Amino acid sequence: MSNVELDGLRGRLDEINSQLLELISERAGIVQEIGVLKEKQGVPKFDPEREKAMLEKLVASNKGPFTSGTIRTLFKQIFSASLDLQSTEHKKSLLVARKNHAEDTVIVLPGNVTVGGLSSLMVAGPCSVESELQTRTVAAALQKAGVKVMRGGAFKPRTSPYDFQGLGMDGLRILREAADEYGLLTISEIVDPRHIEEALDYVDVIQVGARNMHNFELLKAVGEVNKPVLLKRGLSATLDEFVHAAEYIMSRGNMEIMLIERGIRTYEKSTRNTLDISAVPILKQECHLPVLVDVTHSTGRKDILIPCAKAALAAGADGIMVEVHPDPATALSDAAQQLNIEEFNTFFNEVKASGLYR
Amino acid sequence: MSNVELDGLRGRLDEINSQLLELISERAGIVQEIGVLKEKQGVPKFDPEREKAMLEKLVASNKGPFTSGTIRTLFKQIFSASLDLQSTEHKKSLLVARKNHAEDTVIVLPGNVTVGGLSSLMVAGPCSVESELQTRTVAAALQKAGVKVMRGGAFKPRTSPYDFQGLGMDGLRILREAADEYGLLTISEIVDPRHIEEALDYVDVIQVGARNMHNFELLKAVGEVNKPVLLKRGLSATLDEFVHAAEYIMSRGNMEIMLIERGIRTYEKSTRNTLDISAVPILKQECHLPVLVDVTHSTGRKDILIPCAKAALAAGADGIMVEVHPDPATALSDAAQQLNIEEFNTFFNEVKASGLYR
Amino acid sequence: MSNVELDGLRGRLDEINSQLLELISERAGIVQEIGVLKEKQGVPKFDPEREKAMLEKLVASNKGPFTSGTIRTLFKQIFSASLDLQSTEHKKSLLVARKNHAEDTVIVLPGNVTVGGLSSLMVAGPCSVESELQTRTVAAALQKAGVKVMRGGAFKPRTSPYDFQGLGMDGLRILREAADEYGLLTISEIVDPRHIEEALDYVDVIQVGARNMHNFELLKAVGEVNKPVLLKRGLSATLDEFVHAAEYIMSRGNMEIMLIERGIRTYEKSTRNTLDISAVPILKQECHLPVLVDVTHSTGRKDILIPCAKAALAAGADGIMVEVHPDPATALSDAAQQLNIEEFNTFFNEVKASGLYR
Amino acid sequence: MSNVELDGLRGRLDEINSQLLELISERAGIVQEIGVLKEKQGVPKFDPEREKAMLEKLVASNKGPFTSGTIRTLFKQIFSASLDLQSTEHKKSLLVARKNHAEDTVIVLPGNVTVGGLSSLMVAGPCSVESELQTRTVAAALQKAGVKVMRGGAFKPRTSPYDFQGLGMDGLRILREAADEYGLLTISEIVDPRHIEEALDYVDVIQVGARNMHNFELLKAVGEVNKPVLLKRGLSATLDEFVHAAEYIMSRGNMEIMLIERGIRTYEKSTRNTLDISAVPILKQECHLPVLVDVTHSTGRKDILIPCAKAALAAGADGIMVEVHPDPATALSDAAQQLNIEEFNTFFNEVKASGLYR
Repeated sequence: MSNVELDGLRGRLDEINSQLLELISERAGIVQEIGVLKEKQGVPKFDPEREKAMLEKLVASNKGPFTSGTIRTLFKQIFSASLDLQSTEHKKSLLVARKNHAEDTVIVLPGNVTVGGLSSLMVAGPCSVESELQTRTVAAALQKAGVKVMRGGAFKPRTSPYDFQGLGMDGLRILREAADEYGLLTISEIVDPRHIEEALDYVDVIQVGARNMHNFELLKAVGEVNKPVLLKRGLSATLDEFVHAAEYIMSRGNMEIMLIERGIRTYEKSTRNTLDISAVPILKQECHLPVLVDVTHSTGRKDILIPCAKAALAAGADGIMVEVHPDPATALSDAAQQLNIEEFNTFFNEVKASGLYR
Repeated sequence: MSNVELDGLRGRLDEINSQLLELISERAGIVQEIGVLKEKQGVPKFDPEREKAMLEKLVASNKGPFTSGTIRTLFKQIFSASLDLQSTEHKKSLLVARKNHAEDTVIVLPGNVTVGGLSSLMVAGPCSVESELQTRTVAAALQKAGVKVMRGGAFKPRTSPYDFQGLGMDGLRILREAADEYGLLTISEIVDPRHIEEALDYVDVIQVGARNMHNFELLKAVGEVNKPVLLKRGLSATLDEFVHAAEYIMSRGNMEIMLIERGIRTYEKSTRNTLDISAVPILKQECHLPVLVDVTHSTGRKDILIPCAKAALAAGADGIMVEVHPDPATALSDAAQQLNIEEFNTFFNEVKASGLYR
Repeated sequence: MSNVELDGLRGRLDEINSQLLELISERAGIVQEIGVLKEKQGVPKFDPEREKAMLEKLVASNKGPFTSGTIRTLFKQIFSASLDLQSTEHKKSLLVARKNHAEDTVIVLPGNVTVGGLSSLMVAGPCSVESELQTRTVAAALQKAGVKVMRGGAFKPRTSPYDFQGLGMDGLRILREAADEYGLLTISEIVDPRHIEEALDYVDVIQVGARNMHNFELLKAVGEVNKPVLLKRGLSATLDEFVHAAEYIMSRGNMEIMLIERGIRTYEKSTRNTLDISAVPILKQECHLPVLVDVTHSTGRKDILIPCAKAALAAGADGIMVEVHPDPATALSDAAQQLNIEEFNTFFNEVKASGLYR
Repeated sequence: MSNVELDGLRGRLDEINSQLLELISERAGIVQEIGVLKEKQGVPKFDPEREKAMLEKLVASNKGPFTSGTIRTLFKQIFSASLDLQSTEHKKSLLVARKNHAEDTVIVLPGNVTVGGLSSLMVAGPCSVESELQTRTVAAALQKAGVKVMRGGAFKPRTSPYDFQGLGMDGLRILREAADEYGLLTISEIVDPRHIEEALDYVDVIQVGARNMHNFELLKAVGEVNKPVLLKRGLSATLDEFVHAAEYIMSRGNMEIMLIERGIRTYEKSTRNTLDISAVPILKQECHLPVLVDVTHSTGRKDILIPCAKAALAAGADGIMVEVHPDPATALSDAAQQLNIEEFNTFFNEVKASGLYR
């Protein structure tokens, strides 16, 4: 062949490309104008019947070489690019999105404890609040270790209705009292919208648990109070679903949300869940919210908590959550995976010694 | 070696086996006696501190050849076998368990429509109730096809707070009116305990959706009303978790529960979810409840609904759920995967023609 | 707003759509011409540098409203649609694809035993060939039950190098002799290209196991012999990967391939693997090859083999594979999940009684 | 009740516990003696028929309160504990196990480059060797950056038989020459036992790829040469399977093995695979081998390579592997995920700046 021939064909391709660009851009402008008109009328912007009609018309006049299927696909992409112009703006306007809010959100808890930003946060405490003694023992140890925020479950979502379900409001009271005695802040899970108001007196941060990440009524309810929320990733939630769960909360007005990765369900059983470490940098890129990692639930193994906590901080996590119990063997839940106080001290010291905990 | 020697050693093994059997059985009897005493006192049967003390004593007097670890493990197994004596009784006494209730539960809906037992059930209808016209069009088609139960979502749990969330109570009213006009029963999802009471007038079966299978407060709430419940398996729930979610409902007094497999999350993306067909016979073995299969959500593909529905029935399912919409392309949710009315008729006819739909 | 205005805008949209269609079609024609020229020159059709240059030119002249990113994406789609014109032809020309070969492939084994087409196939036999007695016992039982094809492993891919690795060529000889004595055909796994030639005398069907589905050298090697191949889906292979593994074999000239679904790895542990029942209709749609289901490995549970085999046949499977051993408790591999002979007879009778086994 | 009664029962429990301990220990001793006898005879230690007979005898003489099932289970545990005495020794004697070899294995490559031990290793290079120019360009950049080991694929296992399969032996030659010119070492994947011998001249480390982790014939073959092996975790291999794959190699005599985590298949699709960070500390605990992390394949996303590499090192990884290409957009494989040279320099500098790269 002559390269002349090839160059000629390529020249024509370049011309067509330019014409396509012009037409597609003009088209987008018209779609925007129509959008404005529709917005004035309060009519939804996407009109599937109209799109269908346009596609049918195109297919009817298609003479090849593309199949009808390809024409449909290509034009659907062109149509949706125009719509995306609006929804990219929409995505840009997801309240939790970093695109929309470039700086890191820093949440200031009582006593000037900050989450996000320059300093790391260690959240520790028992899986369940079981008794005053148990809770006060942990609180004393945490204070001594320099921890500022204590977790402790009072409403426990358990697989079986016959398992220990937590002490409920009594548990919250015990947690609050122990925390107050030792100068700590509290985090505890709430599972029912009807408990939120009463709980506000006892918790400094409301936790929404993994099993409730898709409980949209609960998300809306915690979105309407003036209290920071710690939102756990669902057991098999995608990151997109996780981000949108946070958006449910923020869209109701509550801007103080911390995300927490806690492992996902996979085939691998040498850990209780699989710690999805990539989630940390992805969430930090996509959202402006603080991101923590629950090393206890992601691994279910005490023997790898130190390297996993270091990995989480190295990946950019703003904090770590870990379970501590004065006597794990007798715990009413999660007996195998809670650290005892001595183990916690070793854990925290090693994490701090790595230089990754700021 | 002499086989005499081997035979001698084996004889001694047999003696030890007998002695172990006697001791273990005596031990179990004593644990039962202690259990009775504790029950009288209202003290929990499992005493982790006592177990720990016993283990320490054993380890202290262990002279090998087993390591301390193996001794701990073996005796924990012996101890827990004794406790299991009580919890096997407990498992036997799971209300949903077939062990506890050998015959199939047959749920009788208004108009003598039965679920479970000898005849198969087809549940069909739109993903979302969108309008009176849309709902009545489907209802008319379903009546004509001989379907008795119509589904239709009014409260839609959607990933994004900005997606169509359903018409709420208005949707339930529209669904009820269309169903009444065409002599159908209704199934619709409820997502908030606070909506249940009002919904009771509009639905014949309350659906608990996949995203709420672990919303224990909702499970408890639907367990307290006198209305059959269709419980969907969670997106990545194990069968054990699924069975216990049903137990949450039944433990509150509501005995009329249908389970529905709807696909699980896996790495495979040629289907929306992976239809776990083995779940059907396992659930039928473990529980006495009717088991349905939602072929729409498990596959997300219209082109394989017929073979999947046949497979579900061949595996022992008591019914099938499928989404139908008068004009799927314009649907406000699940546009790609709903059948249109003609497709539904073909689907239902082929399923019936297989002889598997009874 | 006036609907006049809206209609005007919509009219212009329609014009632009037509112009885009014309340009895109012309573009595709030119790309095809260039493809012909390049083919003559023996130059690859896809020229990433040229594509990059075109994209840069377009981005440089883009004046909005689309971002550079959207312009890139849209034009990449347009470019790749033109390339796809060639690769759809390529996909159409996947040798295993039904698009390319509408009728079902029917494989005729010695003795006129057919796989695919009108009659179902039952393949049964021990996990491993362990001894002459064991193999002959199974063979006698299979003959009596009316089974035509016996499986039996001689080369066993085992997780640990210290586990029983099979009897190798001796195993194949034992299998062949037992099969010949009872008028059966044989299937056995080959794991090394270097064993194929010798094995051809002993097996009627070469099995490629799940762990070797991605061993492309083995696939190529079995593609070059004149012997039917049973290809197992990999432990976590997508259907697309599975189909392409078959294409590796067929592209080397061997047209007689049977696909077998054997369960995939998921989080659910109540079965050994998760039987992906949807794979059956999808593979039947995509390929013209027979599709079997290995119920033993997909479930790992003897108590649900009957419903799962029925489900497989109802979903369109051409056959079933199941493991049978004279005394499963003493088997050297897969002890827990093999049927004994009596259990197999019950299994096969119930499957036949369902009317699904043709 | 009287506590006297409870104390009496507890006293009897303690006595029984002691007697059980004595009997179980005596039993274990006898099993060991039998094991010695059998070893002399060359008979396998585990005799399933004998175990079955013992279990039947026990069940026959069981008078309750345990069910026959529980008796079977308990005694199987006791029996297998005795066998485990031997197999714990066996596990202790897994050649790759740290139990068996407490110090870290440090592999010394030519030029005194070490893997494992005190210093971190960066392995970089193109997915595929495509041309001399491309390979030399990368090699020059790596030398300049201070990297010592270059990767480059010559035999590419690709999903489709029609995709670029690598340059084969020519590729290895190109890689070797470029490496020699710039003073680098080479790593390249071998996929067929028949290629190993010839490849030994070109590679300093043989890579076994993820798709071949279960290709036991290849593992055995690389176990028989005197060349370090980099073993990738399979796409959905458990850690136990991964460790045993390494054992296949080591059991053939090759002691120089590096393990590399490269992400596992999960439902999450925001990354190509899910980087299983917990695998790093678990593998370091279980084995004495160096552990690397392939950040390119685990994530498939250039935008999170830096935090993921830091996380890997913080978790204890001995090295990082990453793909680099002079012009990723035109790469013949993995186009989207390879770093260009400038991006690689930024990547390596940031990883070093973290202080985690030693």
